[in-house]
Amino acid sequence: MQAFDIIAFVHSNDEEDTFLIPSAVRRIPEFSSNDEELISSVVAGTIPSYELEGKLGDCRRAVGIRREALRRITGSSLEGLPFDGFDYASILNQCCELPIGYVQLPVGIAGPLLLDGKHYYVPMATTEGCLVASTNRGCKAIAKSGGAMSVLLRDGMTRAPVVRLPSARRAAELKAFLENPSNFETISVVFNRSSRFAKLQSIHCALAGRNIYIRFSCSTGDAMGMNMVSKGVEYVLDELKKDLLPYSLTSTSSNFCSDKKPAAVNWIEGRGKTVVCEAVIEEEVVKNVLKTNVSTLVELNVIKNLAGSAVAGSLGGFNAHAGNIVSAIFVATGRQDLAQILESSHCITMMEAVNDGQNLHVSVTMPSIEVGTVGGGTQLASQAACLDLLGVKGGSETPGENSKRLAAVVAGAVLAGELSLISALATGQLVKCHLKYNRSTKDTCKF
Amino acid sequence: MQAFDIIAFVHSNDEEDTFLIPSAVRRIPEFSSNDEELISSVVAGTIPSYELEGKLGDCRRAVGIRREALRRITGSSLEGLPFDGFDYASILNQCCELPIGYVQLPVGIAGPLLLDGKHYYVPMATTEGCLVASTNRGCKAIAKSGGAMSVLLRDGMTRAPVVRLPSARRAAELKAFLENPSNFETISVVFNRSSRFAKLQSIHCALAGRNIYIRFSCSTGDAMGMNMVSKGVEYVLDELKKDLLPYSLTSTSSNFCSDKKPAAVNWIEGRGKTVVCEAVIEEEVVKNVLKTNVSTLVELNVIKNLAGSAVAGSLGGFNAHAGNIVSAIFVATGRQDLAQILESSHCITMMEAVNDGQNLHVSVTMPSIEVGTVGGGTQLASQAACLDLLGVKGGSETPGENSKRLAAVVAGAVLAGELSLISALATGQLVKCHLKYNRSTKDTCKF
Amino acid sequence: MQAFDIIAFVHSNDEEDTFLIPSAVRRIPEFSSNDEELISSVVAGTIPSYELEGKLGDCRRAVGIRREALRRITGSSLEGLPFDGFDYASILNQCCELPIGYVQLPVGIAGPLLLDGKHYYVPMATTEGCLVASTNRGCKAIAKSGGAMSVLLRDGMTRAPVVRLPSARRAAELKAFLENPSNFETISVVFNRSSRFAKLQSIHCALAGRNIYIRFSCSTGDAMGMNMVSKGVEYVLDELKKDLLPYSLTSTSSNFCSDKKPAAVNWIEGRGKTVVCEAVIEEEVVKNVLKTNVSTLVELNVIKNLAGSAVAGSLGGFNAHAGNIVSAIFVATGRQDLAQILESSHCITMMEAVNDGQNLHVSVTMPSIEVGTVGGGTQLASQAACLDLLGVKGGSETPGENSKRLAAVVAGAVLAGELSLISALATGQLVKCHLKYNRSTKDTCKF
Amino acid sequence: MQAFDIIAFVHSNDEEDTFLIPSAVRRIPEFSSNDEELISSVVAGTIPSYELEGKLGDCRRAVGIRREALRRITGSSLEGLPFDGFDYASILNQCCELPIGYVQLPVGIAGPLLLDGKHYYVPMATTEGCLVASTNRGCKAIAKSGGAMSVLLRDGMTRAPVVRLPSARRAAELKAFLENPSNFETISVVFNRSSRFAKLQSIHCALAGRNIYIRFSCSTGDAMGMNMVSKGVEYVLDELKKDLLPYSLTSTSSNFCSDKKPAAVNWIEGRGKTVVCEAVIEEEVVKNVLKTNVSTLVELNVIKNLAGSAVAGSLGGFNAHAGNIVSAIFVATGRQDLAQILESSHCITMMEAVNDGQNLHVSVTMPSIEVGTVGGGTQLASQAACLDLLGVKGGSETPGENSKRLAAVVAGAVLAGELSLISALATGQLVKCHLKYNRSTKDTCKF
Repeated sequence: MQAFDIIAFVHSNDEEDTFLIPSAVRRIPEFSSNDEELISSVVAGTIPSYELEGKLGDCRRAVGIRREALRRITGSSLEGLPFDGFDYASILNQCCELPIGYVQLPVGIAGPLLLDGKHYYVPMATTEGCLVASTNRGCKAIAKSGGAMSVLLRDGMTRAPVVRLPSARRAAELKAFLENPSNFETISVVFNRSSRFAKLQSIHCALAGRNIYIRFSCSTGDAMGMNMVSKGVEYVLDELKKDLLPYSLTSTSSNFCSDKKPAAVNWIEGRGKTVVCEAVIEEEVVKNVLKTNVSTLVELNVIKNLAGSAVAGSLGGFNAHAGNIVSAIFVATGRQDLAQILESSHCITMMEAVNDGQNLHVSVTMPSIEVGTVGGGTQLASQAACLDLLGVKGGSETPGENSKRLAAVVAGAVLAGELSLISALATGQLVKCHLKYNRSTKDTCKF
Repeated sequence: MQAFDIIAFVHSNDEEDTFLIPSAVRRIPEFSSNDEELISSVVAGTIPSYELEGKLGDCRRAVGIRREALRRITGSSLEGLPFDGFDYASILNQCCELPIGYVQLPVGIAGPLLLDGKHYYVPMATTEGCLVASTNRGCKAIAKSGGAMSVLLRDGMTRAPVVRLPSARRAAELKAFLENPSNFETISVVFNRSSRFAKLQSIHCALAGRNIYIRFSCSTGDAMGMNMVSKGVEYVLDELKKDLLPYSLTSTSSNFCSDKKPAAVNWIEGRGKTVVCEAVIEEEVVKNVLKTNVSTLVELNVIKNLAGSAVAGSLGGFNAHAGNIVSAIFVATGRQDLAQILESSHCITMMEAVNDGQNLHVSVTMPSIEVGTVGGGTQLASQAACLDLLGVKGGSETPGENSKRLAAVVAGAVLAGELSLISALATGQLVKCHLKYNRSTKDTCKF
Repeated sequence: MQAFDIIAFVHSNDEEDTFLIPSAVRRIPEFSSNDEELISSVVAGTIPSYELEGKLGDCRRAVGIRREALRRITGSSLEGLPFDGFDYASILNQCCELPIGYVQLPVGIAGPLLLDGKHYYVPMATTEGCLVASTNRGCKAIAKSGGAMSVLLRDGMTRAPVVRLPSARRAAELKAFLENPSNFETISVVFNRSSRFAKLQSIHCALAGRNIYIRFSCSTGDAMGMNMVSKGVEYVLDELKKDLLPYSLTSTSSNFCSDKKPAAVNWIEGRGKTVVCEAVIEEEVVKNVLKTNVSTLVELNVIKNLAGSAVAGSLGGFNAHAGNIVSAIFVATGRQDLAQILESSHCITMMEAVNDGQNLHVSVTMPSIEVGTVGGGTQLASQAACLDLLGVKGGSETPGENSKRLAAVVAGAVLAGELSLISALATGQLVKCHLKYNRSTKDTCKF
Repeated sequence: MQAFDIIAFVHSNDEEDTFLIPSAVRRIPEFSSNDEELISSVVAGTIPSYELEGKLGDCRRAVGIRREALRRITGSSLEGLPFDGFDYASILNQCCELPIGYVQLPVGIAGPLLLDGKHYYVPMATTEGCLVASTNRGCKAIAKSGGAMSVLLRDGMTRAPVVRLPSARRAAELKAFLENPSNFETISVVFNRSSRFAKLQSIHCALAGRNIYIRFSCSTGDAMGMNMVSKGVEYVLDELKKDLLPYSLTSTSSNFCSDKKPAAVNWIEGRGKTVVCEAVIEEEVVKNVLKTNVSTLVELNVIKNLAGSAVAGSLGGFNAHAGNIVSAIFVATGRQDLAQILESSHCITMMEAVNDGQNLHVSVTMPSIEVGTVGGGTQLASQAACLDLLGVKGGSETPGENSKRLAAVVAGAVLAGELSLISALATGQLVKCHLKYNRSTKDTCKF
């Protein structure tokens, strides 16, 4: 399903053709006298806006009323914000509350990315000029050199509750209990009860005095898995509370997870998928496609991606622009929590001369790519289409295969992006390209 | 302008009504024999896909052809990915290359956020269940306590090229020259020539041996400003090359900027807007709206946001989920480079008991919010509508006012989000809410 | 006044009475004609200074000749630098090459530190005024409140070689091999062959493309253990080279160890001993001994040790001055590698009000205390005496007991130091005390 | 054998000849009946140990009594800990309280280090085998290649108090006031009143909500300067309190200084002396002295010092073992606060091939070397002798010259140490050397 098809999203009678008539003709929905009343009530504050969906049993209508109420309150026209063309029922109680419409992000296509022997066309949702074109150029360089290879090094989502115990001694005892291999089976049974996909992998406890931070890691099939791991954590905590602990303060999340924050624990121990992806780029390709040479790339990678980030005091940001590619794919493929690009972008890019300096060995190592192909935004029509384009839509037969593949594609596209941007910097193209693009000179970007 | 208006995006004759007919009726565009040829050529690789726009002088048609070619190559239907309802000319050479359609992200509305005496309704584009509802609850707590106040502490975009000189001595001389106050005027004149909005503010040089990393900071009006500062940097480098330096390797960007990477230099010195936002929440509100109490919030903030992040080795992530709110607003308001949420999410959240423990003083301090209200994705119809809703669309009369206001709103919304999530954790609601939401039990989230 | 013991350097005939002649009487040694020749040769560069010990078979004489030669070359008198009073044979090929004398660091005594039910008198070698007195005050506060308790959470020294393989795929295979539990036994056998104390505990591999960083962790008895783990690593690498790998570049150390550098890997995963130490300080003691109150300490700890360090972008430095205490004890007890205070000082200090705000729960959590009671500088007479004072000299019957105890004492003394300094800051004493002390007003420091 | 100078502790009548009686002859002191009484009182706790110096007006005697009391309390002999041979009056109220003796650290000599055209013989106090020999080899490589050059990039000590204000708005106002260039003169006058050497350089304020961290930077002549800057800070705070602020909580130190902690603020903005030091090592020297080749050094530096530290999540530790050299020189030259090696060791080491790969450009960049040549431990006899050996003892005519020179020597010695260790690793010598040394095989280390 897609855009306009929300059109004809049910509805009895008179509403029906509303949706069949394009917005150009009739933009502002005509409200029934009933609607008018509701709008007034929402404006007046007598009906809470968030109750509309429940009250009306009609998501689209609820959105329309909320939107009109907002228009009246603020005086903003909201005209440019699309309303129709979206299935609001699909997000109810799942993806977004208090909806008033949707934004559109254009999706460009980079590729084919030749990765692990297959061709991928990578959908990238972005509004940054040159990004898709640049990644595309990187893909071309990779393909012409025989393709990239990826390896998955680790796969496990984490969540770390914190529990404050009466003393550090007690916290140490709990740590010893939780990390004791002979208790792992028992804890796993409780944890795994939470979902048929969740499989507890490990527990790592850190202390800050009497506060214990318990980092659970588990495999989560094709889901990104935050909810799954959180639920498992709740199960374990409930059990612990019952049998063991007189503690005063507990929080399901403690920032030792660490979710949506740049943190060394993810950089060092991984979170989600840890992937390394590499390619050997031939001298000819470096020259003809990337318009530079091997030794310049090697030197610039050291000066910018390693030393530059070191000087800047970076944490896990030893790359040129991994965040750009990660966020573009995340938006396109409907990652549930967009803010996870914060740790999913961690990346170290290496460029080394091989074969007596004739070829370039380039790699990206990304310890915490958090992706899923089921749940959250992946179910929305446009995002699902992008997943489908990559052949990784929904759950796979062997749970986890699709999400692993998606992580590999993310790393592969980052590899392409790194190659292309470092090359552009090496030849001084960066500013010129960006300026051109943002000035609409209508030239076509050719790299 | 919005969604369907792309409809009637010109076109002579027969194409015209294509756009008037909703996609539900006729999804797959009918191609002319001419189009069919083009599609075949793109599939065969004889016409590069990126040349379509230029060749045809018709963006929508180019996208249609590219899309159909992709469909044939990959066998993916692409059905769910909206095609119509978007003005592809608006992104040409500006926002996205090789477009094949667009994704839709639902926009929820949180607010009113009472900030600096004004009411804001904050558009948040997200697919994470509970996020809008939770932020909304935070807004309510703030409003009931008299509102939040923000202060802008700094405003300047940065870019740091790297230049490799023959020796560290030479690099040191260049540093001395560039940082010498008596040369500032001269350098400024060159730099500021690049744009009427760019005003050079400061230069900070770091060395790694003979490599010098030169961090320029400048005000950029209402633009986010990366291109502006980059262009200024190019001007200065060109001048330096002319008069001064026999250097071998230069890159416009060095990661000391530091763009789209978590890096201490932004955390310590700021990038974009540095904003602090605070509120005093009354005891009654903590109890009735947030369902917890002051001392628990204070303790949990220490254990999670300060100690927890410390234990996790976080850099600038001393908050509960600033990244969530920042990314939701960035997507809604069309930030050019989404990956900038990497540093824009840096935040330290403080919660302190005041008035003998009766009230809660809560604040967020965010050193590097990178936002603009002109350029890049801000010009797209749906994003512009969201900016308009906040009253910060486009350039302001006093350049910079709109982008500063937007930064304040980001901080204010983060304040609301922090308040609500920490409260939810304090009362054990987090997992329950997320699970409920992602399981579509259709209950309405009430916090 | 100065070192008396420079006593008579060299000597006609009878070495014995050399020592009977006080330095005050005869400072400048008389050399034999033979010595004179040697000195001239060293000055002229015809005899390398480092060959003296071997050539002469008399360490003390070698030092004398080197010293005199240096005096002549530089024109510096070296008068103040003690020569006699030290057994130079004890450092030959073990602790220090090319010796010319020794420096003296005064040792103050703090205590009794009541820790885990025992009283410790802690030797601290320092030249920072107030440090011993302040730590002593903290000890007093702890003792008056019933003492501190410590728990050892982990004990293992690490070393991480790096190996560059032909491809990331190969590196990933090696990682999989090394981390596979079913290979652990085999690898352990090889590793443990290196020493009867070394017991391999775990292997953690990280990749940067095709470069694999292999972090071995092993228990090392009472030794700090760097050499032990390094030797084990060599054994494993030799074996791997034989059977497995055509690699081009290898280094025994890769900075992923991470030795003598502030690094998140130690902060997150520990290195050496991980210790937590805690105490509950009674309200009366806070008032009478520390001259402040519980709530001020709690607040200041948050503002300085947590938020302040967060704002400063600290890594593992969430404390007031752990480094001071660690370094003072390290120097006194002869830690082999003083630079290891870089990671041994990692510490998070927590202060929380307990019992309705009447008492203070204070703790220090230190993940990477690297100490040994055998090897290196621990064998020197003065350092051995300090270890003996703590009852932890040399190897213990159950290997590791002494070094673990020493780590606990370090943490306990840090606890005392933190308590006292934060209290001093809370009452504004810091500057006054330091100034007084460094101005020699001869007042006695009383806290 | 051990310290001879424990020489006769106390004594019948004439103090004078005490020192003439070697410890070998009479080790255990005879106390006067008066002393005996004091000892008993100290043991019994009726006389606080810290009062002895004041009571007796005789430091040496006080130490003897304290020492004997401690011996009786603990049962430890303390025999190996030297007592005599040290001027205890020199540390009274300045360097160390509650002294019981001193430890001895052997001083080896590395050099000549050819730096900025001069030859330095660098005293290194260490008990780590191979360290001096290895640094010495690096010095040789540098000297044979024409010497190293250093540049001082910055010189200013910092201290950052924290002040908690009623609101973030007030904190922002204070920040604006303090950072306003037009107020700098006024503030400087107050600040500089504290010492004739202190010259305020800059003020940088950071906020965490309503808490303001105010980082003052000032030049401090030849002193390391912590006390000087602290006193200036006190003067300013006193003035502010008077005129401006109703604040509740203040602390002279806030960890934003950041003293004795690894923190990005020092790495990014510098603390103490920022120094870069470089050399070009000739191919022949790399081969003959360092036993390796240029390209291997360049590659290993990237893999270990840059990528390895990046993977380890290091902050400012992009070097092989800067901490070793820094600590050895700090101990030898009497740095007041040894724990300052924590930030003084921050260093990025770069190795680049130059002249078509024939030569090696090597550099160390160290942003926060904190050294002084007056004050604290620099005044002790042995440490003063080491400073004198370097020609930097005491205050210089142009205040600051000596301490700057010392910082340059530190950097130069680090350069030598890095060169040698990376070379050793490149040729697989590291473990072998350490093992040999710590096993006392009595071979002479030759590199």
